Amino acid sequence: MPQCAVTRRVHFNAAHRLHNPGRSDEWNQATFGLCNNPSYHGHNYELDVTVAGEIDPDSGYVMDLGRLNELVEERLLQKLDHRNLNVDVPWFRDLIPTAENIAMVCWRELAPALPPGLSLHVRLWETPRNYVDYAE
Amino acid sequence: MPQCAVTRRVHFNAAHRLHNPGRSDEWNQATFGLCNNPSYHGHNYELDVTVAGEIDPDSGYVMDLGRLNELVEERLLQKLDHRNLNVDVPWFRDLIPTAENIAMVCWRELAPALPPGLSLHVRLWETPRNYVDYAE
Amino acid sequence: MPQCAVTRRVHFNAAHRLHNPGRSDEWNQATFGLCNNPSYHGHNYELDVTVAGEIDPDSGYVMDLGRLNELVEERLLQKLDHRNLNVDVPWFRDLIPTAENIAMVCWRELAPALPPGLSLHVRLWETPRNYVDYAE
Amino acid sequence: MPQCAVTRRVHFNAAHRLHNPGRSDEWNQATFGLCNNPSYHGHNYELDVTVAGEIDPDSGYVMDLGRLNELVEERLLQKLDHRNLNVDVPWFRDLIPTAENIAMVCWRELAPALPPGLSLHVRLWETPRNYVDYAE
Amino acid sequence: MPQCAVTRRVHFNAAHRLHNPGRSDEWNQATFGLCNNPSYHGHNYELDVTVAGEIDPDSGYVMDLGRLNELVEERLLQKLDHRNLNVDVPWFRDLIPTAENIAMVCWRELAPALPPGLSLHVRLWETPRNYVDYAE
Amino acid sequence: MPQCAVTRRVHFNAAHRLHNPGRSDEWNQATFGLCNNPSYHGHNYELDVTVAGEIDPDSGYVMDLGRLNELVEERLLQKLDHRNLNVDVPWFRDLIPTAENIAMVCWRELAPALPPGLSLHVRLWETPRNYVDYAE
Repeated sequence: MPQCAVTRRVHFNAAHRLHNPGRSDEWNQATFGLCNNPSYHGHNYELDVTVAGEIDPDSGYVMDLGRLNELVEERLLQKLDHRNLNVDVPWFRDLIPTAENIAMVCWRELAPALPPGLSLHVRLWETPRNYVDYAE
Repeated sequence: MPQCAVTRRVHFNAAHRLHNPGRSDEWNQATFGLCNNPSYHGHNYELDVTVAGEIDPDSGYVMDLGRLNELVEERLLQKLDHRNLNVDVPWFRDLIPTAENIAMVCWRELAPALPPGLSLHVRLWETPRNYVDYAE
Repeated sequence: MPQCAVTRRVHFNAAHRLHNPGRSDEWNQATFGLCNNPSYHGHNYELDVTVAGEIDPDSGYVMDLGRLNELVEERLLQKLDHRNLNVDVPWFRDLIPTAENIAMVCWRELAPALPPGLSLHVRLWETPRNYVDYAE
Repeated sequence: MPQCAVTRRVHFNAAHRLHNPGRSDEWNQATFGLCNNPSYHGHNYELDVTVAGEIDPDSGYVMDLGRLNELVEERLLQKLDHRNLNVDVPWFRDLIPTAENIAMVCWRELAPALPPGLSLHVRLWETPRNYVDYAE
Repeated sequence: MPQCAVTRRVHFNAAHRLHNPGRSDEWNQATFGLCNNPSYHGHNYELDVTVAGEIDPDSGYVMDLGRLNELVEERLLQKLDHRNLNVDVPWFRDLIPTAENIAMVCWRELAPALPPGLSLHVRLWETPRNYVDYAE
Repeated sequence: MPQCAVTRRVHFNAAHRLHNPGRSDEWNQATFGLCNNPSYHGHNYELDVTVAGEIDPDSGYVMDLGRLNELVEERLLQKLDHRNLNVDVPWFRDLIPTAENIAMVCWRELAPALPPGLSLHVRLWETPRNYVDYAE
C-alpha cells in the first residue's frame, strides 16, 4: 500500500530548566546536572513535523504545507518561540520541559487540528547532535 | 529479526511549476501560490535512496552501492537532472510535479530494477527544510 | 582595530538558464553544458548577507537584523523568490544569471540601502557544494 | 500507544579496508574497488544511537543521555575511535568492516547494556551522503 | 607569504535576554522585540575559534588543537555553557549579551592566552542562519 | 574594486598517521596522542577550492567550474582519494600529513595549473568541527 509523508522543519528558541519540584535538590542535581541550573539555559530547537496519508490527485499534495505552516505557527510557535518554557508556557507548569515532553506536547497540541485521515509524527532537535521522536 | 538498510544520497536540480490544467486559474493560484508561476521556479533536490534487506556474508553489503549508483543514475538522474520537470520529463505530462509525486515516480521507476529480496524507500528533500517520504 | 560583522542567511528558489545570445549555439553548449537547457532548470539558493562595522554601544548591534531582513526582503527576495531569473527578473535581461552575476546584482541592489558606515559582503550558495562571494 | 525515542549522535574516525580473504584478488577488486586498497583508507563516522521506550514521569527522560553517553563511550568509542578497524579491533578479525557490519556490531555490543524495556536502533553515517540503519 | 589558519568549532548553550536598562521599556521593546522577553529565551551557540600563523615544521601544526581545546574549555565554555548569560556570567553585567558582544568577549578572553605569533578570529553562530565574526 | 570568488567543495577519504620519525616515541605520543596510532586512522575530508578574479563578461563566470573540477580531479583527488596518505602518497614521504600540510600541498599542486589572473585559497575540513585554511 503506498505510503507518503511530508515533513516541514520549523525553528524556535527558548530557555528552560530541568527540575522536578517533588524531588530533593540532590536528586535533581544528580539527574539533571548542568540542566538543573536555577537561572535557566537555552536552545535552538528544530521541529520536524511529519504528516502521512494519501496523495490528493487534484493537488498532488498529502497536505497543503501552507496550511500546515499556519497550524504550526498558531498552535506551537507563537507559544514556544523566544519563551522561557518553565515560566511563560502553561503546558510545562506540571511537566518537566525535557525534549521528550516538549515533543509530546507538540504532538498533542497539533494532532487534533489536522484534517481527517492524516497521521502525525514529530521529531524535535534540541541540539545538532540530540533529537527526540514522538507519536501516539 | 535483523534489519539492515543502506542509504545513498544523490543530487539533482530542476525547474518546475505546480499547475492542474483541469482546474481554474483561481483554484490553482489559491492552491499553489508562488509555485504556480507560469514561467517556473526551481530547486536543488536531494534524493535519499534506501534499500533494505539482509547483509550478504561474502561482501558484507546489503547491496553494492556502486551498482545502486548506476541504477539511480540511469533510471532517475539522467532524466531529472538540469531539466524542466513539466516540459522535459514525460512522467509529469499528466502528473503535477509536487515533491510527493516526484518521490512516487522515483520509487516506481527504481523498485523494479532492484535485486530480488530488497525493499525500497525514498526520501526527497525539496529544500533543506522540506522533505517527502515514499514507499509502496 | 576591532572588526565585527553580522551575517544573516536567507533563502530563495528560482529557475534559470545560462545562455549568451551573442554567441553561437555551439559555444553556449560547450560553455554551459546542461545549464544551457532551453526549458530551464533551477536551484535552492541560500544567500548569506554580511554587514560589517562597529558595535553600537546602546543596542550591542552592528545593525538591527530585523531592519536588515526587511531590506533583503524588499530589495531582493520579493524579486527573486519563486521566479524564472531569465524571464521574470529585469536585472537579467542583459546579464547571464550565473551565480557570480546573481551575487553581484544582490550586492549592488542592497549596498546603497544600508546605513552609513557599514560595508557589505554577500555569499551565494547555488548548491550545497558550490558558492560565490562578492563585494566591491 | 505513545512511542518516544531519544537519539544521541556521536563521532569516531577510523581506517579500514574492505577485503574478503576467502575470495580471489579479482573478486575483491571487482567487489570493493578503491575500498580494497591494501594500505587502507578512512572515514569520519557519525553514529546515531536511538533508544525507544516510555517517558519516565519523574525525570521526563526515556533514558538519561549522560548514562547513554557513558555506555557508548565505554562499549563502542574507546574501541573504535582513531583505530584501524581491520588491525586494531578484534570484532573485525573475521568480519569485513563494511558500514553494514560496523552498524551490526555496534548494535550487538550496546543492546545488552541498556536498561530493560528499551529498544535500540543505530544509524551509521560513513560519509555525509551514505548511511546504514541496523536493528534486531 | 604563506598563511595558514586552523579552526575548531565548539558548542555551548545558554539563556539570555537583550535589554538596555539605561533606556525606556518602549525603546527596548522596539529595539529587541521578542528578544527582550524578561524571563529569557535561549540558543545553541556554535563558536568557531580560528588561530592563524606559521606551520611548525616539527609537528606540522599551526597550534596543537588539544591545547587550544583546553584553553577554550577553561576560559570560555566553563563560564558560558548551560548558563544564563545575564544572570550567571559577570562579563555581561554591564554589556548586553548580543551575539556581537558575546563574540567580542570570547575574543578578548582567549587572545591573551594564545602562544606568541598567532592571531585570533572568532565566529559565533547564534542560530543556523545567523552568525557574527569578530577580531581585533 | 569588485572582487568575486567561486568555491567548489569536493570530497575524498583517506587513512593517515601523524608521526615525526626524527623525534622520540615519547615526543610523538605527547604531541599527536591517538593520531599517532601506528596502524593508522582516517577521515572524510571535504576540500573547498576557492578561485578569485574578475567575472568574464562573455560567460558570467570567474572560471568554468567544469574545468576547475577536472583540474582538482586530476591533480588532487586521483592521488588522495581512498589512499593511505603516509604510504601511498609521495607528497607525504617527508611531510607529516596534518590537515595544515595537506592543505598546503593541495594549494601548491593546484595553483600553478590555474589560468592567469586568478588567485587560489583552499579550506580543508578534517572533521565537521575542524578545518584549515591555506593560501600563499
